[in-house]
Amino acid sequence: MPTKELLMIPGPTPVPDRVLRAMAAPMVNHRGEAFAKVFDEVTVGLKKLYLTDHEVIVLPAAGTGGLEAAVVNFLSPGDRVLALVTGVFGERWVKIARAYGAEVEVIETTSGQAADPPELARRLANDPSGEIKAVLITHNETSTGVTNPLEELAAAAASHPALLMVDAVSSLGAIPLRPDAWGLDVVVTGSQKAMMAPPGLAFLSVSPKGWERAAAATNPKFYWDLTTYRKQIATRQTPYTPAVSLWFALREALAMIEEEGLEAAWGRHALLGRMTRAGVRALGLDLLADPDYASDTVTAVQMPAKLEAKALRGELRKKYGVVTAGGQGKLTDSIFRLGHVGWVDPKDILQSLAALELALDSLGHSVVLGTGVAAAQTVWKEAG
Amino acid sequence: MPTKELLMIPGPTPVPDRVLRAMAAPMVNHRGEAFAKVFDEVTVGLKKLYLTDHEVIVLPAAGTGGLEAAVVNFLSPGDRVLALVTGVFGERWVKIARAYGAEVEVIETTSGQAADPPELARRLANDPSGEIKAVLITHNETSTGVTNPLEELAAAAASHPALLMVDAVSSLGAIPLRPDAWGLDVVVTGSQKAMMAPPGLAFLSVSPKGWERAAAATNPKFYWDLTTYRKQIATRQTPYTPAVSLWFALREALAMIEEEGLEAAWGRHALLGRMTRAGVRALGLDLLADPDYASDTVTAVQMPAKLEAKALRGELRKKYGVVTAGGQGKLTDSIFRLGHVGWVDPKDILQSLAALELALDSLGHSVVLGTGVAAAQTVWKEAG
Repeated sequence: MPTKELLMIPGPTPVPDRVLRAMAAPMVNHRGEAFAKVFDEVTVGLKKLYLTDHEVIVLPAAGTGGLEAAVVNFLSPGDRVLALVTGVFGERWVKIARAYGAEVEVIETTSGQAADPPELARRLANDPSGEIKAVLITHNETSTGVTNPLEELAAAAASHPALLMVDAVSSLGAIPLRPDAWGLDVVVTGSQKAMMAPPGLAFLSVSPKGWERAAAATNPKFYWDLTTYRKQIATRQTPYTPAVSLWFALREALAMIEEEGLEAAWGRHALLGRMTRAGVRALGLDLLADPDYASDTVTAVQMPAKLEAKALRGELRKKYGVVTAGGQGKLTDSIFRLGHVGWVDPKDILQSLAALELALDSLGHSVVLGTGVAAAQTVWKEAG
Repeated sequence: MPTKELLMIPGPTPVPDRVLRAMAAPMVNHRGEAFAKVFDEVTVGLKKLYLTDHEVIVLPAAGTGGLEAAVVNFLSPGDRVLALVTGVFGERWVKIARAYGAEVEVIETTSGQAADPPELARRLANDPSGEIKAVLITHNETSTGVTNPLEELAAAAASHPALLMVDAVSSLGAIPLRPDAWGLDVVVTGSQKAMMAPPGLAFLSVSPKGWERAAAATNPKFYWDLTTYRKQIATRQTPYTPAVSLWFALREALAMIEEEGLEAAWGRHALLGRMTRAGVRALGLDLLADPDYASDTVTAVQMPAKLEAKALRGELRKKYGVVTAGGQGKLTDSIFRLGHVGWVDPKDILQSLAALELALDSLGHSVVLGTGVAAAQTVWKEAG
């Protein structure tokens, strides 16, 4: 029997048909008026999505490229940097910073726990001379399903001169984030998560303080040099050939977010997160994330005893067409992850939970069919 | 009157409908079997297109990112590098190499002239101790419409230990290029030229000698670290999220090139180049490029006296829907460029020349209508 594939991974998100179809538009000259109009619309849309008055730079790159651009533009070799690491993506940013010569001090959190604002405040209070040049924060740690309390962390760092650099790849557009109001200097995201576009574009917003630092930063750079992109904004072009078709997709996706409303999109993701967690818990499964910091874009589920993550994910995919993500790094065998970011609605959660119940049952794990679904339905019903 | 837009710029190429439509396929998990199959097909197709047995790495990046990846993977700060510069793109690669600390010696050629193999041979003969670590060569200089004699240049460097690094962004797939047979170590290209796909992907082939150098190279890198991509090949994945939709497009475009045949595609571009040059010359206009090295993917036309490039290009675009490229850098006012790379057929040249005749006429430049078209028709007819 053919099964329809349902992508429930934490990115790439399923892409709406109208966004996919936008890419079928004929190619245009990236130095002509047709692209300049797309550039204008995307520029406006990105500022609305980012809730920022500052420049948002678009790079043809994966999200990791965006993290690298943040490092090479705002740090210099030898800079002392404080990184709050809550999982694999926090670790990745540390590796990038170290590759470029930063002296990185890590505050690491147990898997499933969030970074602690008072701990950050204490550490920065112990640096009265401002030796620490930047703080690296992962807003939403995709590998563990934890959303760090970014507003509180930013507040804890507010009186320190360090640049606040945020990996918002799997949060921006789905989870409340206010770069200007919270005093964030650099916020990185990617096209393939809440933005509902295909992967291939990375974004960075930069505060005036960020641009000041960039002017003095000494890491070698050319392709990633954001100053070059910034200078080019007035010409409504990018310095190097943009990924034109992805810009078409992005424009359409930004229009969809505008139609829904950013706060409504936040609300939808909050509902998806609550439904998923309620459903999974109702099946007797444990969540990895501290309930106070559970992510609304990805849920990490602990594997029940005697069940293998690989077997469960295989059953879900092959028999029910539900594609989930495995654990990463040291969590490979102990969790699986349900993504619910971007083009996902509450019905997708219901069918995923229904398939999860059937898959658990067929692998011999005792469940009462419908229990998880009912719990999620109740959350939806009560949300009105 | 509506006009159909005809893109005659040296990239992005017009993209065939079937390639555009390939991007409308639903998103897939980049860590699953569906993407792995695309990875396999693209891997095979790229080796055929490159005529190489070596690895071809795919990066989510513009072509400039590919040039940067070549610099950071194969050069170290302080390395002496020899660059053959024939225009803007040669200059760009020098800027990138210098940004990463290379000591670059430039052999520059007058605009429109090609790099000289005997000159290269003499320079390398004066370096018996092998101080020069790499030679940077632009195969096809898009800014001047010149194709450098790459096979001869490679032969001139064959007895020297320098790594041969080639920018083949606007040549590979359109102009004969045999990396393995000619002993090229690193060959960079992009998706948006002869490959007939949208922009957003960069490619690098790497010889075994290139990988040896990479292992010892000390420039900082993470995103661009090709060794990471190479290691990941066995898993049929990329280390960071690939631009999935662009891979779909690429797979389809590679299938089209396979159907046409690579040598047939070379032959088609050779015909397009000859037709364009014959047509332009028949109108009494001069070409920038030395006739012996005129490019088959882009033709740079000298502006006739009393005519402004901007006015001519504007007339061509607004009235006739033919989109051309301007000159770059110091050539901005003195030339315009007709691109004929990728998804272009001989009829496109005929209509472009016909529009050019009308545009010249309407701007008061004396032409006999049909003259350029007839010259190009004759070339096509004689080609059989």
